[in-house]
Amino acid sequence: MTLEEEVLAEIKPTSAEVKAVRRAASELREYIGKAAREANIPGEPLVVGSVAKDTFLKQPEIDIFVTFPPETLREDLERWGLELGAVLEEPTRRYAEHPYTRGRFKGYDADVVPCYRLDRTSDRMSAVDRTPFHLEYVKERLKAKDEVRLLKQFMMGIGTYGAEARVEGFSGYLCELLILQYGSFLDVLKEARSWRPQVQLRLEAEPQREFEESLVFVDPVDGQRNAASAVSLSSLSTFVLAAREYVQGGRREFFFPPEPKPRSRAELEREMKNRGTRIIMAVSSVPDLPEDVLYPQVRKAEQAIVDFLSSSDFRILKSMPFLIEDRWFVLVEVESGQLPPVMKHYGPPPWLENAHDFTDKWRHSERLVNGPYVESDRLVVEITRHYVDAADALRSSLTSLSLGKHLDEEVRAEFSVLEGNGILSGGHESVLSKFLDRRLPWRSRQK
Amino acid sequence: MTLEEEVLAEIKPTSAEVKAVRRAASELREYIGKAAREANIPGEPLVVGSVAKDTFLKQPEIDIFVTFPPETLREDLERWGLELGAVLEEPTRRYAEHPYTRGRFKGYDADVVPCYRLDRTSDRMSAVDRTPFHLEYVKERLKAKDEVRLLKQFMMGIGTYGAEARVEGFSGYLCELLILQYGSFLDVLKEARSWRPQVQLRLEAEPQREFEESLVFVDPVDGQRNAASAVSLSSLSTFVLAAREYVQGGRREFFFPPEPKPRSRAELEREMKNRGTRIIMAVSSVPDLPEDVLYPQVRKAEQAIVDFLSSSDFRILKSMPFLIEDRWFVLVEVESGQLPPVMKHYGPPPWLENAHDFTDKWRHSERLVNGPYVESDRLVVEITRHYVDAADALRSSLTSLSLGKHLDEEVRAEFSVLEGNGILSGGHESVLSKFLDRRLPWRSRQK
Repeated sequence: MTLEEEVLAEIKPTSAEVKAVRRAASELREYIGKAAREANIPGEPLVVGSVAKDTFLKQPEIDIFVTFPPETLREDLERWGLELGAVLEEPTRRYAEHPYTRGRFKGYDADVVPCYRLDRTSDRMSAVDRTPFHLEYVKERLKAKDEVRLLKQFMMGIGTYGAEARVEGFSGYLCELLILQYGSFLDVLKEARSWRPQVQLRLEAEPQREFEESLVFVDPVDGQRNAASAVSLSSLSTFVLAAREYVQGGRREFFFPPEPKPRSRAELEREMKNRGTRIIMAVSSVPDLPEDVLYPQVRKAEQAIVDFLSSSDFRILKSMPFLIEDRWFVLVEVESGQLPPVMKHYGPPPWLENAHDFTDKWRHSERLVNGPYVESDRLVVEITRHYVDAADALRSSLTSLSLGKHLDEEVRAEFSVLEGNGILSGGHESVLSKFLDRRLPWRSRQK
Repeated sequence: MTLEEEVLAEIKPTSAEVKAVRRAASELREYIGKAAREANIPGEPLVVGSVAKDTFLKQPEIDIFVTFPPETLREDLERWGLELGAVLEEPTRRYAEHPYTRGRFKGYDADVVPCYRLDRTSDRMSAVDRTPFHLEYVKERLKAKDEVRLLKQFMMGIGTYGAEARVEGFSGYLCELLILQYGSFLDVLKEARSWRPQVQLRLEAEPQREFEESLVFVDPVDGQRNAASAVSLSSLSTFVLAAREYVQGGRREFFFPPEPKPRSRAELEREMKNRGTRIIMAVSSVPDLPEDVLYPQVRKAEQAIVDFLSSSDFRILKSMPFLIEDRWFVLVEVESGQLPPVMKHYGPPPWLENAHDFTDKWRHSERLVNGPYVESDRLVVEITRHYVDAADALRSSLTSLSLGKHLDEEVRAEFSVLEGNGILSGGHESVLSKFLDRRLPWRSRQK
């Protein structure tokens, strides 16, 4: 048995499981159809997603789209969509193009999502409205369903599965398109070995605009759209690397990565000590908004913090954003948490008009330590630093950085900046552990 | 009385002093002429330099050039030149184009230098052979001799006087040319305010080639030569800055800079502590060679040391070379003398052929701390550093750096690397004091 056959045996639902989820999906569809008719709601439920396309793995989620006529008012569509979603057990409201409902049905996770029933060429078509066309496209053409399953599991294993903001990876639909394009899991990987951004792929559809993303797969149902637009450069790079390594020698770990061992507080303390660097953590809360709204803001906060520390001369080794329940965290590792009180500051060449301003300004400044003097063709002063301590710098400046609309508001109310063992005293072992254990998922820790 | 008149009163030799030095110069010339005739040496002595041109300051040096017919063999010229130089008191051998003699005569410093008596257009003409033509050119034209004196004193005061390697500044001849060009001390300074490299100046002579230096003054006796070729960008910048500041408000300090107060060991220790940086000093010996040969090598050593420390991730604030008697010193101030044991190392993007080599190499390396992982489109590993301590790094690598031909040999025999208070224990207070007290000479220390 090949490795792929072995993996497939583990991930492919049994025929009993397939029957069960199909039955549940049908029941949910009928149930919603009945509810719509009874309430005089002009929506038609449709099973979409991997269950409809038969590309699901174990424990699939049931996706029901309720399609409404194009003339439906947006507010009606949203209200009716939520009304029908209420048939789910444990319903919670989520947000995509429109609000929708996530809940449970017969032991499965289930989504009930309203959308417009549009013409394929309609300008009004949103990402959600395109889903029924994707379903139709894939159902008509896709034979190699198990190959999709393998590719999805591989993407999961290497951490690049999912178009959501947290992952910025490959959607299920994109996996299906890749299999349609290249025929099999292994052929996708073989092709991916030679991908180099910008990668432009397409089936029959001609691209109808210029795309800027690193990976482009022209959506066969809409040439205006890049079905791979969510894929970040990191996810693309990770996939290319994994593909190259897998083709050279496949291992189970690509599909089922080893779980990082949770590390004890003592181990984490020792590791920080051995690294000799300084780890700083900013933490604050997030408002009750969808993760896909918040995650880009946490990334923006990460970038703002890194930029601020860099511009204050702290050298960054790495940084990582986290969004866990109602808190965001940014961890940054700086080479040294302390800089000397004196720094060098370059001025203009002496022949520029503002040379006088520079010497006058600094000659009378309390911050002047030494100079001005001339170095080659530049004026130089040695002055005291604004910030000698990275954590202090961040504490005093976090509220003035532009972190992201919703985070800015929360930070103004409350935040903390912890560092070193203080992060452990705060009980943040698990984020710290993930931060320190950065590696390719299919490789176990080295030490 | 204007400031310039006041300064001139201090620096201009009295008529008695002028008479005395002229008499001494004539006597020396006659003395050498007689010695030449008696020994049947075909050299004719000529008083050159500032005494001949009447642009000298107090305590001038007497320069006698002995001109030989063009057909003289080089070895004869050198032998005879030294033979005639022996008439000086306390004679020592120096080196320029040819060996020459420095000594004393009637209480004055004096040089006796052999050269060829050539046609002005001769290709064989060296810098030394040009001197008689410079003398003739200046004597025929220069009226504003006191203006030259002011400009020379100004150049001395701001630390840019002299074409020797230690200074890389403005020669006496260049000062004379500048006065010929602009008429007066103050007009030279006014013009210099708008100098911006590359500066191209000339009197009647057309340039006969392209020049690359920051400041070019086409030598009126040889259009192939830049009379300002010795002027470094730092010297030019310093002069432009001083000119701008002087024209805005002249002060005695430009001509007579305040002496830096010698600082005590305790003060130096405190200053180093307050700066919070690390000062490292490499020191070794130099062979018995002319300063103009050695100084460029000490500068090269400085650059090699700075480059090495930078490439080892130490951040440099400043560096300074010293050549004192038979020792060279390079002082370097680094932001931190210690770096954490772990560092980040970037590899290629995953789609390059050598990506595998990178991951394979580091996966099996004892230096691997964490990774490899992917950051955007690059592979990254965290590895242990070669050098965590700047002084240790320099100690273990100094002999393998390319410092300069003669210094390399000496370093292989013996060197030391001192740091912080260790520099003081070595008794190097004065170099350290100069290094820490870097400033524009016409400004007193700020604190």
